[in-house]
Amino acid sequence: MIRRHREPFTVWAPNAERVELVLGDSSAEMTRGTDGWWVPASDVVASDSDYGYRIDGAGPFPDPRSRRQPNGVHELSRTFDPTEYRWNDSAWSGRQLGGAVIYEMHIGTFTPEGTFDSALAKLDHLVDLGIDFVEVLPVNAFNGTHNWGYDGVLWYAVSESYGGPAGYQRFVDACHAAGLGVIQDVVYNHLGPSGNYLPNFGPYLTDGPGNTWGSSINLDGEHSDTVREYILENVLMWLDDYHVDGLRLDAVHALVDSRATHLLEEMATRVAALSAAVRRPLSLIAESDLNDPTLITPREANGYGLDGQWSDDFHHAVHVALTRETTGYYADFEPLSALAKVLTRGFFHDGTFSSFRGRTHGRAIDTQRMPSWRLVVANQNHDQIGNRATGDRLGATLDPGQLAIAATLTLASGFTPMLFMGEEWGAKTPWQFFTSHPEPELGKATAEGRIAEFERMGWDPNVVPDPQELSTFENSKLDWNELESVDSARLLDWYKELTALRRARPDLVDPRFGATGVEVDEDERWLVLRRGSVAVVINFDEEEHTIPARVGGELLSFASDGDAVRGRHDSAITLAPHAVLIAEFLA
Amino acid sequence: MIRRHREPFTVWAPNAERVELVLGDSSAEMTRGTDGWWVPASDVVASDSDYGYRIDGAGPFPDPRSRRQPNGVHELSRTFDPTEYRWNDSAWSGRQLGGAVIYEMHIGTFTPEGTFDSALAKLDHLVDLGIDFVEVLPVNAFNGTHNWGYDGVLWYAVSESYGGPAGYQRFVDACHAAGLGVIQDVVYNHLGPSGNYLPNFGPYLTDGPGNTWGSSINLDGEHSDTVREYILENVLMWLDDYHVDGLRLDAVHALVDSRATHLLEEMATRVAALSAAVRRPLSLIAESDLNDPTLITPREANGYGLDGQWSDDFHHAVHVALTRETTGYYADFEPLSALAKVLTRGFFHDGTFSSFRGRTHGRAIDTQRMPSWRLVVANQNHDQIGNRATGDRLGATLDPGQLAIAATLTLASGFTPMLFMGEEWGAKTPWQFFTSHPEPELGKATAEGRIAEFERMGWDPNVVPDPQELSTFENSKLDWNELESVDSARLLDWYKELTALRRARPDLVDPRFGATGVEVDEDERWLVLRRGSVAVVINFDEEEHTIPARVGGELLSFASDGDAVRGRHDSAITLAPHAVLIAEFLA
Repeated sequence: MIRRHREPFTVWAPNAERVELVLGDSSAEMTRGTDGWWVPASDVVASDSDYGYRIDGAGPFPDPRSRRQPNGVHELSRTFDPTEYRWNDSAWSGRQLGGAVIYEMHIGTFTPEGTFDSALAKLDHLVDLGIDFVEVLPVNAFNGTHNWGYDGVLWYAVSESYGGPAGYQRFVDACHAAGLGVIQDVVYNHLGPSGNYLPNFGPYLTDGPGNTWGSSINLDGEHSDTVREYILENVLMWLDDYHVDGLRLDAVHALVDSRATHLLEEMATRVAALSAAVRRPLSLIAESDLNDPTLITPREANGYGLDGQWSDDFHHAVHVALTRETTGYYADFEPLSALAKVLTRGFFHDGTFSSFRGRTHGRAIDTQRMPSWRLVVANQNHDQIGNRATGDRLGATLDPGQLAIAATLTLASGFTPMLFMGEEWGAKTPWQFFTSHPEPELGKATAEGRIAEFERMGWDPNVVPDPQELSTFENSKLDWNELESVDSARLLDWYKELTALRRARPDLVDPRFGATGVEVDEDERWLVLRRGSVAVVINFDEEEHTIPARVGGELLSFASDGDAVRGRHDSAITLAPHAVLIAEFLA
Repeated sequence: MIRRHREPFTVWAPNAERVELVLGDSSAEMTRGTDGWWVPASDVVASDSDYGYRIDGAGPFPDPRSRRQPNGVHELSRTFDPTEYRWNDSAWSGRQLGGAVIYEMHIGTFTPEGTFDSALAKLDHLVDLGIDFVEVLPVNAFNGTHNWGYDGVLWYAVSESYGGPAGYQRFVDACHAAGLGVIQDVVYNHLGPSGNYLPNFGPYLTDGPGNTWGSSINLDGEHSDTVREYILENVLMWLDDYHVDGLRLDAVHALVDSRATHLLEEMATRVAALSAAVRRPLSLIAESDLNDPTLITPREANGYGLDGQWSDDFHHAVHVALTRETTGYYADFEPLSALAKVLTRGFFHDGTFSSFRGRTHGRAIDTQRMPSWRLVVANQNHDQIGNRATGDRLGATLDPGQLAIAATLTLASGFTPMLFMGEEWGAKTPWQFFTSHPEPELGKATAEGRIAEFERMGWDPNVVPDPQELSTFENSKLDWNELESVDSARLLDWYKELTALRRARPDLVDPRFGATGVEVDEDERWLVLRRGSVAVVINFDEEEHTIPARVGGELLSFASDGDAVRGRHDSAITLAPHAVLIAEFLA
């Protein structure tokens, strides 16, 4: 069947000898049923009491399928019936990924209040901006009061600090009312460092080597049928119980799965089945470090059948072209030809040597057939900002013209653009790594580890913010008052003009790789991007340049200072420093 | 670029030596431009006058891209600016094919008045019925006042008898307001027998052997680039200018195309690009007699990338199981195992011998990977009814229980169900072949040919309606007063219960072939269909039978007379004659 609904107060504990249901002050024996599932030995009287499970005398532990953790991830669970909410989105027939613009947001820092309800007041801003989907950083239950979300330990629970599951339903419903789809960021490759009681219940994790963030999930060992089902049911829960329109799958390269049918393919098949049943598009988007087109290749072509995947190569190419940073994984992206390759072929590393990895990396996309929108691209995102030593955005170092160039490349490239909250006005606030682990030792280890990591990279440890300090979280909140500045308003207008131009000029959204042509000059540092009938001319340089491009009527232009176009010639155009011109393309 | 918009008063006539624009009473010389396109030699003053082209002194002929033919297909064209209409569907984000229910309608016979505007009054009926898409028989300009639509000769014009292009825009807009998508039936494989002036303009047709309906279209000969573009621009016109959500492509097996990229693949690519630009799903559905999965295989797997295709095998299997007709192409479908194969594998002829064709036919679907909704199925459609000698529907010969069985198989099979207008209440009105050729000789030939064809098949020529008689058209109109009868109301309720059950029980819509299991008994003539957690038990026979099926609680049931379930046993259920039971499936 498409989706399995579990009875309340049933729990999987295949190796336990005794399981007790703890419900408020009482506890009840449970009986082992089939396949390691336990059910209450006698009828349980429903109540508002919190509950948990005692396994072989230890615990009680929260329910692995807990919907609410009102007192934190270490405490008892609370039931939540998602069917009680009266949805108002019956007219919502979903939104497809192809052609969409995504807006990545972290609920805790998007508004001063940091809740689902407070976020709703800003939906008009997003609609005016031309957004199609909000993509929400993980909202599952995590340790402490604030967190990026990737320390989640109870994948079925919605964080109480954001408003809990009821608040989340209101949020999605209101997004749909505003014409916005919701993509939820979910993590299935690791569990947070505190509050993970899954191993007390069963073999959810592997004994083998883990990944960067902890133990790997048991996807192909003994008992992994039920572990996979734990993930798949969670996927369907978001899409069905919360009317979510798509999921962003965190770091899928860390899903170790040797089975003939990879978990991601199984997920795509199940989600496609649900999509038909609910009659709306449901999208799966992978964050992947593999540069492997298999993920987004249809199942009929022996791919996994996901709808999209992030392409960090785009970020790196744009970032380097603008900032000229060439450390670490930026090294290979130094020439503008790297950006040209990304724009015309999707992946830069498509079987080429990656100096950062010390090996060849990636595989070429079938640009004759795959639509370019399957790659989700950003000039900034939570990771690329937050994993910098000080969490500084592009706006901290680039001038308005350069920010306008970044926006243009993202929104006119034919890929699926994703904006990071605040970039639309060049937010000056940093977005830093923050945690709120209540355990002093874990907090200390997290902070020291973070600071030491950047010290090794040559940073003054005193400039690296302490993730455990409340101020690090508070500083990362958007300051909506910035919108009153002239530069912010000007950049925001530019973003709006770009999203409006996408709708007025379909060629800007054309997903055929063949519709894109690029020319660059490495010395003068300009780039001419052709998108069907539209030409995008960019001067990355600090000097004005005369660029051999035959363009017709101007559609839009932006320069840091003064006019972008300094002169028009027969078959060339002179652009100001850090300027961009969008115009009719003349063949 | 995605879509090319042609300037008004430009026309392609690559072999002409002189082209004149006739505009009202005046005419103006035209100049040969590039690639065989002609433009007015001097500025043309826009006016409301009708226009046409004189080619090498002959004519004037209507514009091949005419939007309106107010005086019929032989007369001058009239301009129509599709951008003037103020659409009210900005909140419409489209509707995907997967999971949808389609309703096939012919505008001229759907209502007594036979217009777009009169059809709108019935949209509530369709919404209540649980419809997602209306699929409209061709509305392009055809010869005469009424026609099925397949005699179209001006593919860019909307028939004036239905309300013309402005009426069509109102129709689509109103459908969207009601939450209904629109699929438009379009014909690119032949032109009607009268009013086709394309050969006067250029090599639109091939000289070689034609198909059943006339000359083949020049898709791969000299000058075929422009002919293909004529088709592709028409495809984009419907989807873009008229906000249509999908196209049904008539008889694609008659598109003769030897090119490396088949026209259908090119169409799919262009439509996918437009879909991203307009940010809504756009579906292409082929009518195909090929049983070739290539059509609906994604391009990444070297298919054509269409969204769906009709599966006549489903119709034949259901029709034979109910009527026991086994003449002509029904012969191979005699045993119930044919229906079982269709339900579990999509095509019956998937590399098997077709006795009707005298050769093996078809190729197997990859049931591990292809979603079953790509097959569009019907227990009746315009062709399967209208191409019978007397145009009789199933309702003319079957009893209510049998009609309920037909509905159940269509709506619970996992394929995309398509209903033919009126079947939802078991309409008794026939749907006959009708034409209104004004030319006496053509009318006579059409009528005599039709009647002779059935005479050869053993029919009394006096019972075959004359297609040219007005009464044949009038008799084919739905009689909405039939809804007042008890049997009609009961069947309509059954259809509504089935579409409601699809929404309540997602497993009924599960598009994974693996979610379907079938058992049949050829002697007792029953069938048990498992769809995930739901069991569908059908008794085709005229006797009651005890069927070895373990089923739980009843969800729905229907019998011609009395209770469907005559008895329940340990692992079996006794069903009345011509009865169906839908119940929980017990493993």
